[in-house]
Amino acid sequence: MLKQQNNLIMNYVFYPNSIAVIGASSDAEKERMTGWVGRLQQFGYKGKIYPLNPKVKEILGLKTYPSIGEIPGSVDYAIMVIPRRFVSRSLEECIAKGVKVVHIYTAGFSEMGTDVGIAMQKELERIIETGTTHVIGPNCMGVYCPSGGLSFDVRFPKESGSIAFISQTGVGGRRLIQLATGRGLRFSKAISYGNAIDLNVIDFLDYAVSDPETSLILLYLEGLTDGRSFFNILRGCKKPVVLLKAGLSEGGSGAVASHTASLAGSRQVWEALFKQTGAVSVDTLEEAVEQMVALQTLPPITGNRVGLVGRGGGIGVVAVDMCEREGLKVPPLAQETRDRLATIIATDSGSTIRNPVEIGLGATGVSEHYVDGLQIIASDPHIDFLITFLNPEDYIHYGVKGWVEDISKALIRAKKAVSKPFVVVFLAGQSGEVFETILRIQRTCTREGIACFSTMDTAIKALGKTITYYQNRND
Amino acid sequence: MLKQQNNLIMNYVFYPNSIAVIGASSDAEKERMTGWVGRLQQFGYKGKIYPLNPKVKEILGLKTYPSIGEIPGSVDYAIMVIPRRFVSRSLEECIAKGVKVVHIYTAGFSEMGTDVGIAMQKELERIIETGTTHVIGPNCMGVYCPSGGLSFDVRFPKESGSIAFISQTGVGGRRLIQLATGRGLRFSKAISYGNAIDLNVIDFLDYAVSDPETSLILLYLEGLTDGRSFFNILRGCKKPVVLLKAGLSEGGSGAVASHTASLAGSRQVWEALFKQTGAVSVDTLEEAVEQMVALQTLPPITGNRVGLVGRGGGIGVVAVDMCEREGLKVPPLAQETRDRLATIIATDSGSTIRNPVEIGLGATGVSEHYVDGLQIIASDPHIDFLITFLNPEDYIHYGVKGWVEDISKALIRAKKAVSKPFVVVFLAGQSGEVFETILRIQRTCTREGIACFSTMDTAIKALGKTITYYQNRND
Repeated sequence: MLKQQNNLIMNYVFYPNSIAVIGASSDAEKERMTGWVGRLQQFGYKGKIYPLNPKVKEILGLKTYPSIGEIPGSVDYAIMVIPRRFVSRSLEECIAKGVKVVHIYTAGFSEMGTDVGIAMQKELERIIETGTTHVIGPNCMGVYCPSGGLSFDVRFPKESGSIAFISQTGVGGRRLIQLATGRGLRFSKAISYGNAIDLNVIDFLDYAVSDPETSLILLYLEGLTDGRSFFNILRGCKKPVVLLKAGLSEGGSGAVASHTASLAGSRQVWEALFKQTGAVSVDTLEEAVEQMVALQTLPPITGNRVGLVGRGGGIGVVAVDMCEREGLKVPPLAQETRDRLATIIATDSGSTIRNPVEIGLGATGVSEHYVDGLQIIASDPHIDFLITFLNPEDYIHYGVKGWVEDISKALIRAKKAVSKPFVVVFLAGQSGEVFETILRIQRTCTREGIACFSTMDTAIKALGKTITYYQNRND
Repeated sequence: MLKQQNNLIMNYVFYPNSIAVIGASSDAEKERMTGWVGRLQQFGYKGKIYPLNPKVKEILGLKTYPSIGEIPGSVDYAIMVIPRRFVSRSLEECIAKGVKVVHIYTAGFSEMGTDVGIAMQKELERIIETGTTHVIGPNCMGVYCPSGGLSFDVRFPKESGSIAFISQTGVGGRRLIQLATGRGLRFSKAISYGNAIDLNVIDFLDYAVSDPETSLILLYLEGLTDGRSFFNILRGCKKPVVLLKAGLSEGGSGAVASHTASLAGSRQVWEALFKQTGAVSVDTLEEAVEQMVALQTLPPITGNRVGLVGRGGGIGVVAVDMCEREGLKVPPLAQETRDRLATIIATDSGSTIRNPVEIGLGATGVSEHYVDGLQIIASDPHIDFLITFLNPEDYIHYGVKGWVEDISKALIRAKKAVSKPFVVVFLAGQSGEVFETILRIQRTCTREGIACFSTMDTAIKALGKTITYYQNRND
């Protein structure tokens, strides 16, 4: 852990003024499509880019250099995309040049579990000790920082957000960012740091905890070398931390060894850590996304009594069971609330006003009673927050006109009118049209600060954990 | 339970020769779009339809009758879609006419929890006793039977399958059929039976167990009146039964009371039932769909040792953890297998050959090594079956051409070439295009008998339960 100089080094990681790409392709089209030079240019990086390639004079309009030593100015950051056998020599040259941070993208080291791979990684560790250059990797994607103009994937949004994502996995990390940004979430920084022979989770976490751009931290972690520091930083952190600790099963710890050559640690130790630090534990990348949606869009809820509103008695019963499995309660409504609801629901309609409540969501669309119903239920003293579930597939297939606008408007109106927090669940359908429509309404809602989920069980799980998080924080 | 005459009565339920629609609308357009007469006509029902309406002479080209007594021929089946207050009188008339089965669609009875609703349902129960007419409902959607030309939703497939779905919920039941058919599953019969004042789950289950059209039974159940018979039928059943028992939580049992006026029963009793009958327990409608995909497409697997194949080390580690949570094992591969894999994977590629294995799935598409890799892993004596995960979002966004065909072909080839069962998981993306493409490949695969899932956790959960099912059956 770097402590003193951490912020200085992290500035070079996320906001370098110059980047050398060691191993830029002489094939311009290839470099433009899949290389780092093309990636930095397309993502709008504003600093200097130095492509390294001994064969050509220019790549994508930029002068190339045969070696890092021949670059005239200083180099803040170097990205190494060269075959494994050239990495150690190149690292020595970076140190000689005084490069601040090197990102070794190349894989094939300890994670292979082979003698050669392990020996080559040991050699890199030895070389680092000979200078002040810091290393990210090897075997990793590197940095995504929209405000610094850096991204390991040009398709990621250029818009900044407030989530810092620290990830030991590359492909999985990219997938998480795709899923999260598709749901309207945005990142301040993301880093895939792989085998972590130098800069590691502690350094990045320490930075994220005090980074003013960051309000929520997500970690994907396989192993740790300094558990005590990690624990202390987490315990002191005032921002919510969502943590996917992979490799806690017997087979999983073996898989961790061959993925990032880390030690996975025991389940007991990690369970204690979650309990004592208040970090929110998730099991999958998909769950991590839902959990972040909950933490980013909901106010600090500590009460666990839910009012459920949606169409379909059976769907409601199943939802109640889910709620209780996740520590939420679905209590009967007060008599006064039921009397008020009865005035706007036909008594012989077959709609229930107990809890779950069916109101204003017919096969023909959303009626004006929907928001009224939400308001009445929110005023019940037995209820802390509301979950409303909507089934777009029905509206699409019954050919209900204007329902997307009707629902969006109703939800935005409800957000203002309803006195307690409320959560919207869109039941998934089985067509691209349903899917796209849900995404569209979800993005509108996310902009308005409305918490939207895609399945009932992911929503309820995320809510249960969110409430526990705020309850623990208040203790 | 009807026993002796059960098949006879169920023939009237699923294959009636004549249907009276009590409460057909005089507004032809309305009846065509949302009424039962329109529904039966559009779904292709071949028997006689008698619309009942005292105001008009003809509805949608069919002669109407003012009352059921005035229909000249016999009536096998009547569907009641009239206001609650007219139901008891109408039921008496059906009995007088000798109607074999009446489906009371109308809601507003015991499920309301009101004195009036409960009294009205009691009255219906009394009336049934006065004749031989049988009743489905009230408060339910009724029958979907493609081979009988009946459906409560015209959008359901006309193609028959081998799943019988017995459902106490209507809206939820319809949703389940939408989800399942969207995934390529097909039904022999489905029934939503609501408050079950006469024909109930026992009758339908007893029929499904011996129905030659049915090979898999799905139950959504809130409550039971004859637990002993239910238990005995389930225990004797040779077909797999998937059972969603709703209302097992404290709040859920209250919600059940207000949905179908049933008694939910205790968790202990139901857990014992699952254990002793081998019925497969699921918690949500969505999980039910995945479970049916597993049971319909996989051979009887009893070994729990998985070979995992896909791109992304972190995704693999998370998958291993999931497998072990659900009782599956992801053992290291035999040295011989690893040696064989090493001959087709570059050793410094960073790809792992331990288990999970990364092979043949680059950012540029599926290589010829993919199926070779699956074959090699399948030949490992430590492996019982394979799970391979694919990420279509990558191929779409990297603009890989022809990948849908490449993957489909590779999977179909693998199905023939690979010596052990294998399962395909498509990682979900965040766009309608990804969603539609996955559905398309899934449908191709389902036709070829390949088990396809949409998320890793649903796949692994369904697989774990499938293996337990076959292990119990062999005991």
